[in-house]
Amino acid sequence: MRIVVDAMGSDGHPVPDVEGAVLAAREFGESIILVGDQAQIEAELAKHNTADLHIEVKHASQQVGMTDKPSEVVKGKPDSSMHVGLQLVRDGAADAFVSAGNTGGILGIAMLRQVGVGRIKGVKRPALGVIFPTEERPLLIDNGANADCRPEYLLQFGLMGSLYVERVLGRERPRVALISNGEEEGKGNTLIKETIPLLRASGLNYIGNIEPKEFMKGEADVGVVDGFTGNVMMKTAEAIASYMNNLIRDELMSNPLTIVGGLLAKPAFGRVRMRLNSDEVGGAPLLGVNGVVIIGHGRSNAYAIKQAIFQARRMVENKVVEAIATGLEQ
Amino acid sequence: MRIVVDAMGSDGHPVPDVEGAVLAAREFGESIILVGDQAQIEAELAKHNTADLHIEVKHASQQVGMTDKPSEVVKGKPDSSMHVGLQLVRDGAADAFVSAGNTGGILGIAMLRQVGVGRIKGVKRPALGVIFPTEERPLLIDNGANADCRPEYLLQFGLMGSLYVERVLGRERPRVALISNGEEEGKGNTLIKETIPLLRASGLNYIGNIEPKEFMKGEADVGVVDGFTGNVMMKTAEAIASYMNNLIRDELMSNPLTIVGGLLAKPAFGRVRMRLNSDEVGGAPLLGVNGVVIIGHGRSNAYAIKQAIFQARRMVENKVVEAIATGLEQ
Repeated sequence: MRIVVDAMGSDGHPVPDVEGAVLAAREFGESIILVGDQAQIEAELAKHNTADLHIEVKHASQQVGMTDKPSEVVKGKPDSSMHVGLQLVRDGAADAFVSAGNTGGILGIAMLRQVGVGRIKGVKRPALGVIFPTEERPLLIDNGANADCRPEYLLQFGLMGSLYVERVLGRERPRVALISNGEEEGKGNTLIKETIPLLRASGLNYIGNIEPKEFMKGEADVGVVDGFTGNVMMKTAEAIASYMNNLIRDELMSNPLTIVGGLLAKPAFGRVRMRLNSDEVGGAPLLGVNGVVIIGHGRSNAYAIKQAIFQARRMVENKVVEAIATGLEQ
Repeated sequence: MRIVVDAMGSDGHPVPDVEGAVLAAREFGESIILVGDQAQIEAELAKHNTADLHIEVKHASQQVGMTDKPSEVVKGKPDSSMHVGLQLVRDGAADAFVSAGNTGGILGIAMLRQVGVGRIKGVKRPALGVIFPTEERPLLIDNGANADCRPEYLLQFGLMGSLYVERVLGRERPRVALISNGEEEGKGNTLIKETIPLLRASGLNYIGNIEPKEFMKGEADVGVVDGFTGNVMMKTAEAIASYMNNLIRDELMSNPLTIVGGLLAKPAFGRVRMRLNSDEVGGAPLLGVNGVVIIGHGRSNAYAIKQAIFQARRMVENKVVEAIATGLEQ
């Protein structure tokens, strides 16, 4: 298996990207192709012991920045590490693409077969899945690839999410739910109401509408949502978690007794952070494009990059792209 | 001033509802009209010292349950405490209505002038505001009254929210933002994109699009959002906060040292809970109906009911309903 890693992706590129690739090459034994500025990558690789590892470097003369507009990079930076990397997958020279770069850029490039990998036949809109970092690890789809959705898109998100969870996370007959503002019949917006009959008739294990609380508790394996609401939901969750961490830290530091308490309790807080750590769950799979594409957080460290590569590997091994193509034919 | 309190509203009714009314009558000196089952209310009132307080009881023979469908109660329970209470406001016999009951029920009844108070002239859709319980107390509007929205509705939510924040919370020229999945131009769904020019031309202090994190930090005073996304956002915030609390408690209890640490740090956790406590911020104002209506959480305690009454009082004193009517004429 050959996995392409975008060396110019993360906020701290190429340091964590290259180190993550080295860790993955060592642990999994797969071939890694690092794409980006050759000189920078080689300088970074020289810091690691790469003897016996299968790591290649493929030069790309341009790079997509975090603030670049997706519409401008697709045609405007044809030799970016994203273009070069995705084309290796399209042309069969590699099996998967992993990047912690500009999400909009990856989406824009990946969607088009001319510059990236293109869509799987029959897919209306590729969507971004994301594992919610609560204990039960449910998948939320779409996390922002499609701000405006139609019922047919949501139906496909359910199908793609279900196949991902089944094959990558190994859960049988994943429970699929629509994320809504209430579980009762009649709750939800028009989009939700029009999607319900499609999911009911789909053959998926559709269990109804679910509120965020029940979703986080793992009462569904796949939470289907339009990309606007899904992205606001994910960002709200991250913001509240970080807000609470800061609040607790401030309050603990406010008097000597609670400082001592906080120090004694430190291992517990460390475990809480660990259990809510998005690095653990890897990156976000872009489902519906004609190749395995995993998008990591911009602030990924080497460990998160390694986890994203692991995830890409699971998707390749378990033929998720092929399963989606077959699933859509039925 | 005469404020109606629905004695049959909260999950624990009539206990916290009546006690909250007594606390408010004592602290604020206003007249309170408790509406609901007369015998139950009087039995509850007898437990308190109500000498010198202005408290009346108005009997209503029916009550709306938490699981009642809004569509069924509007016509189906014409003598509910919600109907009777809202009609007192409509007919000028009272100045405000406070209930911790079924939100959908209150919305449905309040909207119609025939059974409730009706809309302010020119209001397309009344909306539910909610104070986000972070330090800076920004207002989110709509929190679920309108699952499907149009740009003109969002424009009015901005206007109504701005007037509420200005008059009730005392902030001048409140900063109004659209809640979105990104701050950059071009982010957002079609609804957001079509609302931007309306807000720009509105004369409101519109500051652009804002993500949940910046909203919580108080970078805007009013966050405008469709009721579906707003409700999912609020529920996600509550769910994550409670999830983290449980996680911290579990981890603290997992070994003797962290148990001791947790005990010493207990005051700090108490303060964190206090700072995130939605009881403090009172209930949700229903803006756009022709009267002051405050909807409390079903699990309100007496203190939360008292705070909701305080909020109703501020809305009456500062003529928020009149200001919305005037604002819409312009």
